[in-house]
Amino acid sequence: SSFTSRKWFTLIVSSIIVGYTAAFIDLSSVWLNDLRKGVCFSKVDTWSLLNPYSTCPAGKWHDWSVILFNAKGSVSNWLVNFPIYTLFAFCWITLAAYITIHKDPLIKQSGIPEIKLIISGFNYRINYYLGLQTLFYKTVGLILVVSSGLWLGKEGPLVHVSCCILNILYGLLVNTSFENEAVRRELLSAATATGIAVAFSSPIGGVLFVLESMATFFTPTKIMWNSFITASVAVIFLTGFRVFTDGSNFQEKDLFSVEFGNFSWLFLEIIPFITLGALGGIYGYLFITVNSYFDKSGVRHVIQNRLLSLVGASGVKAGQYLEVFAVLLVTSILTFPIDETKLQLNTFLTNLFTACPTDTDTSEAITFICSSSNGITILKLSYILIQGFILSTYSFGVNLPGGILMPSLVLGATSGRLLGLITQAIQTKFLSSEFLATCTESSCIVSPASYAVIGAAAFMTGVTKLTMCVVVIMFELTGAVSYVLPIMLAVMISKFVNDVLCTSNIYDTFLKNN
Amino acid sequence: SSFTSRKWFTLIVSSIIVGYTAAFIDLSSVWLNDLRKGVCFSKVDTWSLLNPYSTCPAGKWHDWSVILFNAKGSVSNWLVNFPIYTLFAFCWITLAAYITIHKDPLIKQSGIPEIKLIISGFNYRINYYLGLQTLFYKTVGLILVVSSGLWLGKEGPLVHVSCCILNILYGLLVNTSFENEAVRRELLSAATATGIAVAFSSPIGGVLFVLESMATFFTPTKIMWNSFITASVAVIFLTGFRVFTDGSNFQEKDLFSVEFGNFSWLFLEIIPFITLGALGGIYGYLFITVNSYFDKSGVRHVIQNRLLSLVGASGVKAGQYLEVFAVLLVTSILTFPIDETKLQLNTFLTNLFTACPTDTDTSEAITFICSSSNGITILKLSYILIQGFILSTYSFGVNLPGGILMPSLVLGATSGRLLGLITQAIQTKFLSSEFLATCTESSCIVSPASYAVIGAAAFMTGVTKLTMCVVVIMFELTGAVSYVLPIMLAVMISKFVNDVLCTSNIYDTFLKNN
Repeated sequence: SSFTSRKWFTLIVSSIIVGYTAAFIDLSSVWLNDLRKGVCFSKVDTWSLLNPYSTCPAGKWHDWSVILFNAKGSVSNWLVNFPIYTLFAFCWITLAAYITIHKDPLIKQSGIPEIKLIISGFNYRINYYLGLQTLFYKTVGLILVVSSGLWLGKEGPLVHVSCCILNILYGLLVNTSFENEAVRRELLSAATATGIAVAFSSPIGGVLFVLESMATFFTPTKIMWNSFITASVAVIFLTGFRVFTDGSNFQEKDLFSVEFGNFSWLFLEIIPFITLGALGGIYGYLFITVNSYFDKSGVRHVIQNRLLSLVGASGVKAGQYLEVFAVLLVTSILTFPIDETKLQLNTFLTNLFTACPTDTDTSEAITFICSSSNGITILKLSYILIQGFILSTYSFGVNLPGGILMPSLVLGATSGRLLGLITQAIQTKFLSSEFLATCTESSCIVSPASYAVIGAAAFMTGVTKLTMCVVVIMFELTGAVSYVLPIMLAVMISKFVNDVLCTSNIYDTFLKNN
Repeated sequence: SSFTSRKWFTLIVSSIIVGYTAAFIDLSSVWLNDLRKGVCFSKVDTWSLLNPYSTCPAGKWHDWSVILFNAKGSVSNWLVNFPIYTLFAFCWITLAAYITIHKDPLIKQSGIPEIKLIISGFNYRINYYLGLQTLFYKTVGLILVVSSGLWLGKEGPLVHVSCCILNILYGLLVNTSFENEAVRRELLSAATATGIAVAFSSPIGGVLFVLESMATFFTPTKIMWNSFITASVAVIFLTGFRVFTDGSNFQEKDLFSVEFGNFSWLFLEIIPFITLGALGGIYGYLFITVNSYFDKSGVRHVIQNRLLSLVGASGVKAGQYLEVFAVLLVTSILTFPIDETKLQLNTFLTNLFTACPTDTDTSEAITFICSSSNGITILKLSYILIQGFILSTYSFGVNLPGGILMPSLVLGATSGRLLGLITQAIQTKFLSSEFLATCTESSCIVSPASYAVIGAAAFMTGVTKLTMCVVVIMFELTGAVSYVLPIMLAVMISKFVNDVLCTSNIYDTFLKNN
């Protein structure tokens, strides 16, 4: 029928536009983010429109201090590069704050809680909240915020962007002749899935996100959680029995294709996995508590007033600007010293997920995670963990668009990598050298990179209370089918611990507080 | 509370028992199935309780003709092995038919439609249909049917087994003090997920099966399907843009981690993928039509009467027995000539999913799929396809427990392998030898094994109309994250084609006809 074909046309066209928009946000923010550090002077590639830092050939990347004064070293780094780095960020963030405070306050934060409300039937100024103006400002705002290096992610807000695109097309194509609010909500659910899908390149994860988090409309969350637990338990017990047909051919990796090497380590490694899960649950609780504390108790207000009296200005909006600038300044100072934290959060996440090359003569650019000694790496990771937690809890709430999914993933991956390094050190200490000699790198040595994946999953569950969706996103994101079992374990523990500590996730808490 | 803890206790205990039961069914049917062919005379392994054919060391397996008369060759094969092969199968099938016809007719077929009814609220003699007696008979019946080599699977019926186990425990632990039919149905949904999970070692696939197929209770099927399409389209468009940041570093595998080698082949290979999808949709329609024709038009009745007059007997039950025996005899004759078809269906499926070893000197046992020339392999696969389709459409409906998921997967994998071989032959013919020389086996040569995975997914979708669930099951089953994109494409095409041809899946058709 004409109605069905219009509906499908709207869905397909909007998903193509979402794909383009997400790509545009990605490309622009990579470019603006890199510009803060320097320029890549290599011939532009066949396809590339720009030469980002991450793919710039070795030796072709030039920091600003080199370009302007041909100076290298830490003095010129702090005297030239740091001011330029911060100045660019100030430009981006001023524009983003201007859009948010003066033009369109609705683009603030992630927008997922509001969309949850809309899909569950509440008519939250729908044609304005999901209109063309909001779409434009949110897209521009997101690019600027991500480029400025704040501890905020673009992943959650992509749901808002995607819903805007769908709603505008719905108004143009479907709404004119067939007004139907139920259909609009049905299509908005699909747009939510699309948003998460492009955020993590995870189509199935997106669909599960809708099913798990839009619970008021769909209800099956409890049933999914029950099913998920029982299905996993049964499969683990079933697979254990393969030992009886396969005998000594039975390999540990047959258990959910997990490659763990030595079987005894499988059981011992459960301790760090459970720890990571519990940390994830506690992180979620702490994040929500600290973040609500800033919002509810007037801490932000006090800070804004202090800043106002410090510069001798007045007015609510001036206070909001000053708060954003202060957050940016603190973020720039804290993130500048370490190369890894100057990267965009998702690039840093990818590095945390990547195992160190075994061949030390490799020509690949290696990050501090692999090049430093274990002790220094542990110190640096702890530093990133602490500053990241403080910055993200405070940043999620200032007058800027930006979400909390990516910061949670990064904090989880950092914790995981840290715990992985510690476990590896313990293992190396207690294992005899003869035993280690029979190990290949991929068999019985603890892999900190896989701990990072597990930690990221646990932390994302802690802050969102989602389970299946997180597991699927992790293996669509990393292709890490081999870690499904520990990821599931950590996610379950995280959810249990978090359920004991608090009853609602970050989005419901946001709705409660407002 | 006491209620919640009882509920969780029931869920966990029942899933552990389901794991054990599924393992018991697997082990017993492997053993009984192998016994039809011969015995493995090797030392029993550390862990093994038995030595199955598949893991028996080379040279240690002895066919019955060797054990009894020390005779090898095709004469002794047909004179000694075939009668023993059929005789054992007759023993198993007689017992299975006796249980189904005389003891408990409720164990017939898969049981998924009935459980769908129960979960949607219809009280289908619940304590009998999901009682201890049914559990016992269905378990025994399943083992016997699978061991006898009929074209019926144990995967669907495991849902019935799992629901029986949960319902019995529910009666013992929860029901006594807190009668609540809504809770019972909630737990039965979890048990359904557990059944599918153990059938395919796919916990997340199990959960999605419940969400997609138990639509009357949960409703979000339409929304899931919309979301699945839009999410996939958006991600494909987004990922294509990575070419602009990665430039010539962009690899085709970045697109959904698909490793296709030559980019031009990616686009040309879409033709066989779409063909497989369409074939899957048509298969589903044909299967349902032919199967319903047997059931509704009285064909079974005519056949039973012919058989009765042939042996000079009478009576409805005698006719049912004779029908089962006739199906078994035809199956034994058709499956005996080829080694692969004497295997259990799930072992054959694994072989179809496995790529041929590149090194020809390998000591591994290779199947005809790899050892024969392409022409013979194509002939054999076509033969398996035709006999499998006829046998499974007729077998699904005789008085025996057994499901249709595994036969559909095997038929799909066979078609896929067939089409893969043909595509590979076309490719080799039209590609210049210089170009082929630059190819590695894993880069630009078509892999028939991956076509088998795609075909299996398309055929399962064709018969069940499930989409996301099938994609997830395929990658939990095979670990084939690299084929996600073509699997999704084939599944979508299959669903579209099938929706055009018919409106209900095999389970709903079954409910309509009864």
